[in-house]
Amino acid sequence: MGFELDAVVSKLQNLATSDHSSVVSMNIFVALLCACIVIGHLLEENRWMNESITALLIGVCTGVFILLVSGGTHSHILVFSEDLFFIYLLPPIIFNAGFQVKKKQFFVNFITIMMFGAVGTLISCTIITFGVTQIFKRMDIGPMEIGDYLAIGAIFAATDSVCTLQVLNQDETPLLYSLVFGEGVVNDATSVVLFNAIQSFDLEQIDPSIALQFIGNFLYLFLTSTLLGVGAGLLSAYVIKKLYIGRHSTDREVALMMLMAYLSYMLAELCYLSGILTVFFCGIVMSHYTWHNVTESSRVTTKHAFATISFVAEIFLFLYVGMDALDIEKWSFVSDRPGTSVAVSAVLMGLVLVGRAAFVFPLSFLSNLAKKSSSEKITFRQQVIIWWAGLMRGAVSMALAYNQVGATLQTISRGCFTMSGHTQQQSNAIMITSTITVVLFSTVVFGLMTKPLIMLLLPPNPHKGTSSTNSILSPKSVTVPLLAQESEADLEGHEVSRPSSIRNLLTRPTHTVHRLWRKFDDSFMRPVFGGRGFVPVEPGSPTERNGHGWH
Amino acid sequence: MGFELDAVVSKLQNLATSDHSSVVSMNIFVALLCACIVIGHLLEENRWMNESITALLIGVCTGVFILLVSGGTHSHILVFSEDLFFIYLLPPIIFNAGFQVKKKQFFVNFITIMMFGAVGTLISCTIITFGVTQIFKRMDIGPMEIGDYLAIGAIFAATDSVCTLQVLNQDETPLLYSLVFGEGVVNDATSVVLFNAIQSFDLEQIDPSIALQFIGNFLYLFLTSTLLGVGAGLLSAYVIKKLYIGRHSTDREVALMMLMAYLSYMLAELCYLSGILTVFFCGIVMSHYTWHNVTESSRVTTKHAFATISFVAEIFLFLYVGMDALDIEKWSFVSDRPGTSVAVSAVLMGLVLVGRAAFVFPLSFLSNLAKKSSSEKITFRQQVIIWWAGLMRGAVSMALAYNQVGATLQTISRGCFTMSGHTQQQSNAIMITSTITVVLFSTVVFGLMTKPLIMLLLPPNPHKGTSSTNSILSPKSVTVPLLAQESEADLEGHEVSRPSSIRNLLTRPTHTVHRLWRKFDDSFMRPVFGGRGFVPVEPGSPTERNGHGWH
Repeated sequence: MGFELDAVVSKLQNLATSDHSSVVSMNIFVALLCACIVIGHLLEENRWMNESITALLIGVCTGVFILLVSGGTHSHILVFSEDLFFIYLLPPIIFNAGFQVKKKQFFVNFITIMMFGAVGTLISCTIITFGVTQIFKRMDIGPMEIGDYLAIGAIFAATDSVCTLQVLNQDETPLLYSLVFGEGVVNDATSVVLFNAIQSFDLEQIDPSIALQFIGNFLYLFLTSTLLGVGAGLLSAYVIKKLYIGRHSTDREVALMMLMAYLSYMLAELCYLSGILTVFFCGIVMSHYTWHNVTESSRVTTKHAFATISFVAEIFLFLYVGMDALDIEKWSFVSDRPGTSVAVSAVLMGLVLVGRAAFVFPLSFLSNLAKKSSSEKITFRQQVIIWWAGLMRGAVSMALAYNQVGATLQTISRGCFTMSGHTQQQSNAIMITSTITVVLFSTVVFGLMTKPLIMLLLPPNPHKGTSSTNSILSPKSVTVPLLAQESEADLEGHEVSRPSSIRNLLTRPTHTVHRLWRKFDDSFMRPVFGGRGFVPVEPGSPTERNGHGWH
Repeated sequence: MGFELDAVVSKLQNLATSDHSSVVSMNIFVALLCACIVIGHLLEENRWMNESITALLIGVCTGVFILLVSGGTHSHILVFSEDLFFIYLLPPIIFNAGFQVKKKQFFVNFITIMMFGAVGTLISCTIITFGVTQIFKRMDIGPMEIGDYLAIGAIFAATDSVCTLQVLNQDETPLLYSLVFGEGVVNDATSVVLFNAIQSFDLEQIDPSIALQFIGNFLYLFLTSTLLGVGAGLLSAYVIKKLYIGRHSTDREVALMMLMAYLSYMLAELCYLSGILTVFFCGIVMSHYTWHNVTESSRVTTKHAFATISFVAEIFLFLYVGMDALDIEKWSFVSDRPGTSVAVSAVLMGLVLVGRAAFVFPLSFLSNLAKKSSSEKITFRQQVIIWWAGLMRGAVSMALAYNQVGATLQTISRGCFTMSGHTQQQSNAIMITSTITVVLFSTVVFGLMTKPLIMLLLPPNPHKGTSSTNSILSPKSVTVPLLAQESEADLEGHEVSRPSSIRNLLTRPTHTVHRLWRKFDDSFMRPVFGGRGFVPVEPGSPTERNGHGWH
């Protein structure tokens, strides 16, 4: 009895003492976020910089400053926490991406995206794993198992979807954006399957049945995750339409959309599915149905509030990675062998370059074979940008690296004490510092060069087809609220010819699928779940009358 | 070296293992939040219920359910954390209240609010402290010092501003809302001063200089907190106006407003000021200047997004208190003496009733003496509602009670080991369980009866003056976006007569102050900080053209 209350009390005391230092670090963080936003605004017209690089550099500078002030003892105010990353920061970013994505572009290129995300990631992972196995053996960086090599492959094969959002603009290069970002979303599912495979399969005996099992797992995970997201989105649309929530309060509509989206992500995580896929599809369904069922003011609010939350989370993430990069504890382990760490980083970087090239160009070629019209094909210049823009490794890689180190050491502490603890620790420290180096280098260097590369390879003149329908310098405030309407207007524009459906399915498969979907949507889905054209609030209320300007 | 990484690794392992259980509890919480919103919507027209009581009851039911499922071992999924409460949940609620408050009502009644918040809280605190000193001595509930009694007085004298928001409606009863809610905001400063006084003053020797010191501290704290909030608000207005942030992105404007407001709260907490006062005044300044400097879509977004965040935080809070109430650990300490706990709760409840009555009626009388016109006076029926609506003790009381137990036990563990640890623990447990009982009872019973009481005492017919200018059943979606304009239109309507200012200052002090403020505002503040009438975006952009419907 006494012990129980003692525990509570010591917890309370910890809270009281930790309170002020956490307040200090919150203050610094929020002030830095404000600084990043203002500096990002001032650098808006700069062709090289973007907000993520600004945040990363500010983070590193703050880290250096804290390191100097504290006399070299510590350099970060918050330790990088996977929880914070996967539970709070990632879901709003991916949800907003799904909510604002141009649905037409995404679904027209669906097969290519799936190929890139699933097959491409596998190819890249295989090449990186094979490469590190061959090279690291000769470098004496401590004992590593086949599982570690596979983990490195899985970590560095995954495209960071958050980085992609920063360097590619949906309005300027819609095709490239949908391909690279879509790949980033799909390969989250691939990564989950890969990580589970690494942990559950017996890696000593590899036989062909594993490949089948792997494909089965991927399809199961992809389908269940997608269905969960679609289900959550449809449920929110149905509840808001049926219960007519906007009648009493717009706040409830916005809150319900936000909470349902978050719930879908958390449910996916609970069931060990791919939360990123789930919340992305939830965003797509919500923008197709739920968004049209709410009142006008809720539409404006959700559109901008989700974008703002996602924006703040992105900046927070880069700031965080920048500040965490200089953690003196990690670097002290490799300080006696700086050359090894640099060499490992260089090897990883090179393998990432090769691994990505090894699937982008062949798969683009395959994808072009299936397409009839030359305007739909991916040009070589576009392939180069796809290759380049997906090279960045960011916070997702970092979180996975920490996760892997934790998992490895858990395995070690459980059973095999055969190897020396210290060498194992050193190889882990090298892995983490190398990941940080790769993350910083790839984000800053590749990030800085992506904008100029796009300017060079795809100059913004209107003869390039779909890749430059919008003017490059249009402010976001103008284009964002019109995205949904725009993309849906595009969709309807394609409903021109209706020849016999089977021949059409063979010659223009995506368009036929799209026409069938429209038919199904109009006759079954919209009557139940609302969607465009549904008017939720009785006409005559002042808000609604004024709000019609937003249509 | 090895130890350091070991520490990191064990932290990572903890994260990995704690990860899944925290995911489970997040799922339950988010699902319950959704349920609360939907049920709250369905009960909207019910005259007894409100969202907070629904959330509290759902929380208690979930607690019972978990208690039964876990076989009586535990009943909560998250332990009530002061950090979570004061750092994450409280700031958005208070900021939104400042942002949406009717500024005219607030400043016209400023002196009355200050009297209620400062003098009233002191009177109430004195009565409760004196009462518990006399009664608890005869009840044998363990050794308690004078500091403990003072802490109980401070905890139970403070009106819970969050509860007030739930039972009083700004549109239906603007005078009562501004008085009771304003009092809740001001008495946060009083509470901070009281708590500091209790901890720093030598309570054995009380002499008159302490009273002066107390008044000095209160004024210092009130002024610095207010200035910090006003400063943060003005800075945000200046930055957004000067740098023309809406030119590139509406997201940056919204993010900057949100972050600056939060920064003001955290800075106040950092400097041991009253964060509630700071963020409340920051909200007022932001709605007066910053809100008018941003683009149309940002205005709609901030109005609704802040309201939504505040709404979710309120529901979360009540759900949380409800679930935490059944924590078996706390109740097991008092299970052998259930009578004492009930008696203590009853005594506290009675003292709260008496303590509040002892200042509401006399101070209202004083306030009425200063007012000339009978329409401005607080009627007796309104006084009864002010007394009643401020009786609820909610999450703020609970957080303070935990805080006090932590502080008391910290003091004990530091020095005086004279008394038996077990009795001290028991008196603390009784204090916590009694606080929970008072919180649950007052929120549910007083909360349930406030709406009917207002209906009974102030029936909604239009002859009551300002207290029912808006129709009671107008949906929030209609009134919320118009609040600011409405209140400012009211303000301008009073600029009719301009007699000689000194005579006017004596006869109609608030109006003269208001006129002088308007003059100052128009000639000095608005040219620098923007405000109403400032047009941030060049006309001609589609968003802006469409958005004009929102004016």
